[in-house]
Amino acid sequence: MAQENLSVVLRSQGDLRLENLPIPEPGPDDVLLQMHSVGICGSDVHYWQHGRIGDFVVRKPMVLGHEAAGVVVKTGSAVKHLKIGDRVAIEPGVPRDMDEFFKNGRYNLSPSIFFCATPPDNGNLCRYYKHNANFCYKLPDNVTFEEGALIEPLSVGIHACRRGGVTLGSTVFICGSGPIGLVCLLVAKAMGASKVIISDIVPERLSMAKELGADFQLQVKRENGPQQLAKSVEDLLGAQPHVTIECTGVESSVQTAIYATRSGGVVVLVGLGSEMATIPLINAAVREVDIRGVFRYCNTWPMAINMLASGKVNVKPLVTHRFPLEQAVQAFETTRQGVGIKVMLKCNQNDQNP
Amino acid sequence: MAQENLSVVLRSQGDLRLENLPIPEPGPDDVLLQMHSVGICGSDVHYWQHGRIGDFVVRKPMVLGHEAAGVVVKTGSAVKHLKIGDRVAIEPGVPRDMDEFFKNGRYNLSPSIFFCATPPDNGNLCRYYKHNANFCYKLPDNVTFEEGALIEPLSVGIHACRRGGVTLGSTVFICGSGPIGLVCLLVAKAMGASKVIISDIVPERLSMAKELGADFQLQVKRENGPQQLAKSVEDLLGAQPHVTIECTGVESSVQTAIYATRSGGVVVLVGLGSEMATIPLINAAVREVDIRGVFRYCNTWPMAINMLASGKVNVKPLVTHRFPLEQAVQAFETTRQGVGIKVMLKCNQNDQNP
Amino acid sequence: MAQENLSVVLRSQGDLRLENLPIPEPGPDDVLLQMHSVGICGSDVHYWQHGRIGDFVVRKPMVLGHEAAGVVVKTGSAVKHLKIGDRVAIEPGVPRDMDEFFKNGRYNLSPSIFFCATPPDNGNLCRYYKHNANFCYKLPDNVTFEEGALIEPLSVGIHACRRGGVTLGSTVFICGSGPIGLVCLLVAKAMGASKVIISDIVPERLSMAKELGADFQLQVKRENGPQQLAKSVEDLLGAQPHVTIECTGVESSVQTAIYATRSGGVVVLVGLGSEMATIPLINAAVREVDIRGVFRYCNTWPMAINMLASGKVNVKPLVTHRFPLEQAVQAFETTRQGVGIKVMLKCNQNDQNP
Amino acid sequence: MAQENLSVVLRSQGDLRLENLPIPEPGPDDVLLQMHSVGICGSDVHYWQHGRIGDFVVRKPMVLGHEAAGVVVKTGSAVKHLKIGDRVAIEPGVPRDMDEFFKNGRYNLSPSIFFCATPPDNGNLCRYYKHNANFCYKLPDNVTFEEGALIEPLSVGIHACRRGGVTLGSTVFICGSGPIGLVCLLVAKAMGASKVIISDIVPERLSMAKELGADFQLQVKRENGPQQLAKSVEDLLGAQPHVTIECTGVESSVQTAIYATRSGGVVVLVGLGSEMATIPLINAAVREVDIRGVFRYCNTWPMAINMLASGKVNVKPLVTHRFPLEQAVQAFETTRQGVGIKVMLKCNQNDQNP
Ligand SMILES: NC(=O)c1ccc[n+]([C@@H]2O[C@H](COP(=O)([O-])OP(=O)(O)OC[C@H]3O[C@@H](n4cnc5c(N)ncnc54)[C@H](O)[C@@H]3O)[C@@H](O)[C@H]2O)c1
Ligand SMILES: NC(=O)c1ccc[n+]([C@@H]2O[C@H](COP(=O)([O-])OP(=O)(O)OC[C@H]3O[C@@H](n4cnc5c(N)ncnc54)[C@H](O)[C@@H]3O)[C@@H](O)[C@H]2O)c1
Ligand SMILES: NC(=O)c1ccc[n+]([C@@H]2O[C@H](COP(=O)([O-])OP(=O)(O)OC[C@H]3O[C@@H](n4cnc5c(N)ncnc54)[C@H](O)[C@@H]3O)[C@@H](O)[C@H]2O)c1
Ligand SMILES: NC(=O)c1ccc[n+]([C@@H]2O[C@H](COP(=O)([O-])OP(=O)(O)OC[C@H]3O[C@@H](n4cnc5c(N)ncnc54)[C@H](O)[C@@H]3O)[C@@H](O)[C@H]2O)c1
Ligand SMILES: [Zn+2]
Ligand SMILES: [Zn+2]
Ligand SMILES: [Zn+2]
Ligand SMILES: [Zn+2]
Repeated sequence: MAQENLSVVLRSQGDLRLENLPIPEPGPDDVLLQMHSVGICGSDVHYWQHGRIGDFVVRKPMVLGHEAAGVVVKTGSAVKHLKIGDRVAIEPGVPRDMDEFFKNGRYNLSPSIFFCATPPDNGNLCRYYKHNANFCYKLPDNVTFEEGALIEPLSVGIHACRRGGVTLGSTVFICGSGPIGLVCLLVAKAMGASKVIISDIVPERLSMAKELGADFQLQVKRENGPQQLAKSVEDLLGAQPHVTIECTGVESSVQTAIYATRSGGVVVLVGLGSEMATIPLINAAVREVDIRGVFRYCNTWPMAINMLASGKVNVKPLVTHRFPLEQAVQAFETTRQGVGIKVMLKCNQNDQNP
Repeated sequence: MAQENLSVVLRSQGDLRLENLPIPEPGPDDVLLQMHSVGICGSDVHYWQHGRIGDFVVRKPMVLGHEAAGVVVKTGSAVKHLKIGDRVAIEPGVPRDMDEFFKNGRYNLSPSIFFCATPPDNGNLCRYYKHNANFCYKLPDNVTFEEGALIEPLSVGIHACRRGGVTLGSTVFICGSGPIGLVCLLVAKAMGASKVIISDIVPERLSMAKELGADFQLQVKRENGPQQLAKSVEDLLGAQPHVTIECTGVESSVQTAIYATRSGGVVVLVGLGSEMATIPLINAAVREVDIRGVFRYCNTWPMAINMLASGKVNVKPLVTHRFPLEQAVQAFETTRQGVGIKVMLKCNQNDQNP
Repeated sequence: MAQENLSVVLRSQGDLRLENLPIPEPGPDDVLLQMHSVGICGSDVHYWQHGRIGDFVVRKPMVLGHEAAGVVVKTGSAVKHLKIGDRVAIEPGVPRDMDEFFKNGRYNLSPSIFFCATPPDNGNLCRYYKHNANFCYKLPDNVTFEEGALIEPLSVGIHACRRGGVTLGSTVFICGSGPIGLVCLLVAKAMGASKVIISDIVPERLSMAKELGADFQLQVKRENGPQQLAKSVEDLLGAQPHVTIECTGVESSVQTAIYATRSGGVVVLVGLGSEMATIPLINAAVREVDIRGVFRYCNTWPMAINMLASGKVNVKPLVTHRFPLEQAVQAFETTRQGVGIKVMLKCNQNDQNP
Repeated sequence: MAQENLSVVLRSQGDLRLENLPIPEPGPDDVLLQMHSVGICGSDVHYWQHGRIGDFVVRKPMVLGHEAAGVVVKTGSAVKHLKIGDRVAIEPGVPRDMDEFFKNGRYNLSPSIFFCATPPDNGNLCRYYKHNANFCYKLPDNVTFEEGALIEPLSVGIHACRRGGVTLGSTVFICGSGPIGLVCLLVAKAMGASKVIISDIVPERLSMAKELGADFQLQVKRENGPQQLAKSVEDLLGAQPHVTIECTGVESSVQTAIYATRSGGVVVLVGLGSEMATIPLINAAVREVDIRGVFRYCNTWPMAINMLASGKVNVKPLVTHRFPLEQAVQAFETTRQGVGIKVMLKCNQNDQNP
């Protein structure tokens, strides 16, 4: 095993560096992983640029990265289901307390949860990383490391579609064609949605959505009002969508989402905007359009692995850029510029394959 | 049968009169009812005072009233389950089209639904009224006409608690102690809620809530901010409530409702405020506090009758005033002044009992 | 319009004939349809061979057929959403009473429901047939009549998968590869099931299942015990299935279904066997494997049309034989022999296309 | 702290003794409890009489008891939410592995779960017992130790009613008036059931059920057939019950349960009978009467404590006998004879209060 552990460290707002950190020692319930592929997320870039997201503030150096897959190189004494050499995908959130949320199966809501690269918890953009083995999932041979890493954003899409109740024959409106909007698109289709319409303001993002299977694209212009956009959605689909998944966080887009959705349907809020939002709440209430938030995900990795192994979903086209770990700063700059969809960092010098 | 049909007619905004209208002839699926007890609802008063509620505008004379019970005096040719002399409670909403909402069991969302005293549909504040027999429910002997009439507001509470998922051991926060807040209180308790806290700005309303079984009362003052009120709710209950039922329609109260509710819980919107509302949407989203509206109710009468017949819920204390139909204007004035809780109009000259 | 109405009439057990019946006159809520394609169902054959299914006994001549699509040639006075020339699929079950089941959205359970070709109600294997317009659904141009007719068996699959909770990443075990097992297979896949294993005793049926997308086939032999078969299912899938859909009605297969299903999962009973069945009930109970029956379907046509129009599901390969209406007896004989999967009768002399 | 730990040990089938065992040392996540009140369960008696229940066989001496409450006398190093002196109720099942069942909130289905007094795991009928602190719940001052101990059987009732979907206005049929049937009765009533009918063959049990609030009692006689009994249930209630909770495990009673339940309703299987059962499966299937098992419970303690503290449920009358721990054999003999309902063992020599 290498004696160094090159890591992408955010020392403070704007100060992103590669540093050599000690290789951690796994506790009894942990595994030590040699990292293989780690995607860069919008939140990683946000911490770098702004030093905080909401109440989470970077107060001390933190390793970034939470969309990750690697190989087991050491197992804690109590670990039974994994062994050295296993290829695994990492679920970055690990509940610390056996509180009511955990016991009820909604551990993502546990306030004390550990989460990679959310201050003060370190992420896994590095060579060697230890993680609770119960939140590492063995990948079948026909699922690549990069697919494994992409389970993290995919999980947001799974949780969103699940909370929205997307099912066979559903019509779905997705606001925003960023990486998160796109994974929602892929998942909605895989769950049987018959028609998906997706919006964005940037035409390139809509083209990508079209390639990934969106049935209709709606280009949003500054001058379009929410009710007008809602009308366009209805006209294109032939009826109002059963489910709308908001993936921009923009206030006017949330308004459009509500107006657009069919009575008795659901608006899922994935995008995170400003603290207060002004929305047509009565319109939602009297048509019983439920508004349901999404906070990350829970219980998605096993189903995601099943999906990927069976080819129900193809996430490979989401990876548009790859950089070796050594070029992390350049990779972050690429993500910051919004070029492509997903940038992958390759953490293993001897294996830079997908 | 009497040859006159004294009716409470709203001719136009502000113009409320007693008029003699023809006795209607039931169609094949209808029953003709001799009305017994009809409650006055906030919406009846609102139409009288403002001539409209949202998009529903009084454009021609309309009979008011939709909280009603009476006796079958004639049956349409196709009616099988009711006979002359049956005492019935009336569900005021009758779907006209067999659309997707009706087929799916959510007929309250059907856009073309008939609804008593919602323009242009006539209500039942009169001596004789015909209604679709499928939406008239036979009352057992031990349920009074007034209890039958109160099933209408009670149904709002049932639908709200059901949409909120109130169940055994739930803790519930109800915003507003008007008639609707109070029926939510009664229903929540009957569904097994362990603790209910209720708010209002008027102390008398809180006293009434206390009498009806509220475990805690929270008096809201102008200077209290929503987060401060949310904190008080948590302090009183010892933990955040699982479910919050908003029954004021006031924007600041919706804000309080969101801040107050436990992660993974539900805010039910019953109160109807202004078109747009500014709310802490992100707070709800990242804690997965669902926001669910209530539009009237569906499928509540049979369960409500079961409840009343078995004594699970006691709605009798809600009736604080009674007037004969002839004094309808005075009765409306009483409701307008916000005195007491529920005013009952007694439509049968020969039987003014509860 | 032709003056004759050639119809497939079952006069009594074993006595199947083509007869000329009067062309019916649509009532106000009906449409008159010129039939185009009607599939033969196992139940049609069963009535022919045995004169009864359970408590439903053929006591007077009955027109067979309930998997059907046609063209509107006349509309009742109250019909708004259909017009002459519309191509429609027919939902054969039409509730007669607005009872609790209908109001709750589970109208298939309404005991007084009309159902095509269930005694004493006539089916639609004929040239002209009238039906309640609310249960006729307009087909988009890109959905053929035969696809429209196949919505009926497909609906059984939709209802079964929906009751089973099949969703993204589910693993599913289907017992029996008859027409019903096969539609369950197609629907499960379209809902996102990652792996489907299907069983049968006849190798040809398994081959067909393989062609339609089954991931694994399990050939059942007389000497295999239920627990042994359950073990094979687990071995092939790598874990017990989340959902098992029983489509044979055979007692030993129900036993296998229970043993095979994962704890906390669901066994859906579609197949209909004998009145009493001996099953490992405790095994299901202590592992909280729910047992849920399926009685036909409700609220499936709109979602099925969405699916077919969007190409989410390809039912075309299910049609293996076609006969003109005039050769109905020969067509029934083909179905009786269990050759192929679905036999279609073409009812329009001028258009025998799919 | 006392240096002895008097314990009720089942050495092997039929050999029940009081022995002095060492006082256990709590691990970091445990608390050491001084036991106060422990109820005797039918399963304790069954192990004593038969040495096994199904696959669980007593192969080495085992301490009995799993319905228990006590006081914290020592806390493990990692325990945060409990302190010395806290009065707690004990949830006897503690999942050992963070498997899919645990992560999904259904930890009762985890195959490797620890469970008090299920071989080979020791129970808590002793003076001092250590338990995972996360499965010990602090009792409010107004909830007695005995009420705390009764949360265990009560939890079976909560889980059963929850799985059955009992809610406001439900009508419920409970088969069997043993301790488990009675807690189901109490819980169903607290959840808003309007009418509960309960059966038994022993008149005294029915009298007790009546005292505890059953609306109707059905005395089952050997000569009554299941369909006849089902008819009696319908006649008494005026309609078929929405939910039936089977608490006898007797085959004919399961048959009655199915015939009796309303179409679209639920039969909950709590009673555990023999491996195979012959039941009218088709009757359940075609009426979509779901059959759902109950295996113990999960996530019930917090809601049960809320209920008890708020007085929503009164379990105190269930305790009909009390014995000091020293008289455990006599206490077991009392339970074996089926006298009364619940026998409590008082484990603290200095405090034998409820
Ligand atoms: N809730 C969660 O757990 C969770 C998890 C991950 C991401 N997120 C949030 O999801 C959102 C999307 O993430 P992303 O990585 O795809 O971000 P992104 O910024 O790459 O994508 C957002 C897209 O929305 C488009 N957009 C902006 N305004 C629009 C408008 N008015 N109408 C339509 N499209 C518009 C942008 O052009 C962009 O393509 C972000 O707000 C992020 O914070 C939430
Ligand atoms: N969604 C539906 O189907 C439906 C049906 C019936 C009524 N409603 C609505 O429900 C609401 C309540 O109806 P009601 O008849 O009880 O009305 P109401 O006016 O009698 O009661 C409202 C109560 O809220 C109190 N209140 C006002 N501001 C408050 C604040 N900031 N905090 C706490 N309490 C406050 C008032 O003092 C009053 O007692 C109304 O908005 C009505 O339109 C909706
Ligand atoms: N519940 C409903 O609403 C509903 C609707 C339609 C059909 N059905 C029922 O569904 C069942 C299937 O219908 P179908 O038209 O496909 O019938 P089918 O007879 O064509 O198919 C049944 C298949 O099961 C196979 N089979 C028999 N024993 C088996 C065993 N032990 N293991 C595995 N496979 C076995 C047969 O070889 C056959 O291929 C029938 O019982 C039918 O009555 C129910
Ligand atoms: N599923 C679980 O997690 C779980 C948990 C606890 C208990 N149980 C089971 O629940 C059942 C009840 O437990 P209990 O402690 O109340 O047992 P119990 O033996 O005290 O009570 C059973 C009652 O059923 C009555 N009975 C017998 N035959 C009957 C019939 N044909 N019709 C009506 N009543 C009849 C008996 O007279 C008796 O009163 C047992 O089978 C037990 O194993 C299951
Ligand atoms: Zn991310
Ligand atoms: Zn009203
Ligand atoms: Zn059929
Ligand atoms: Zn027990």
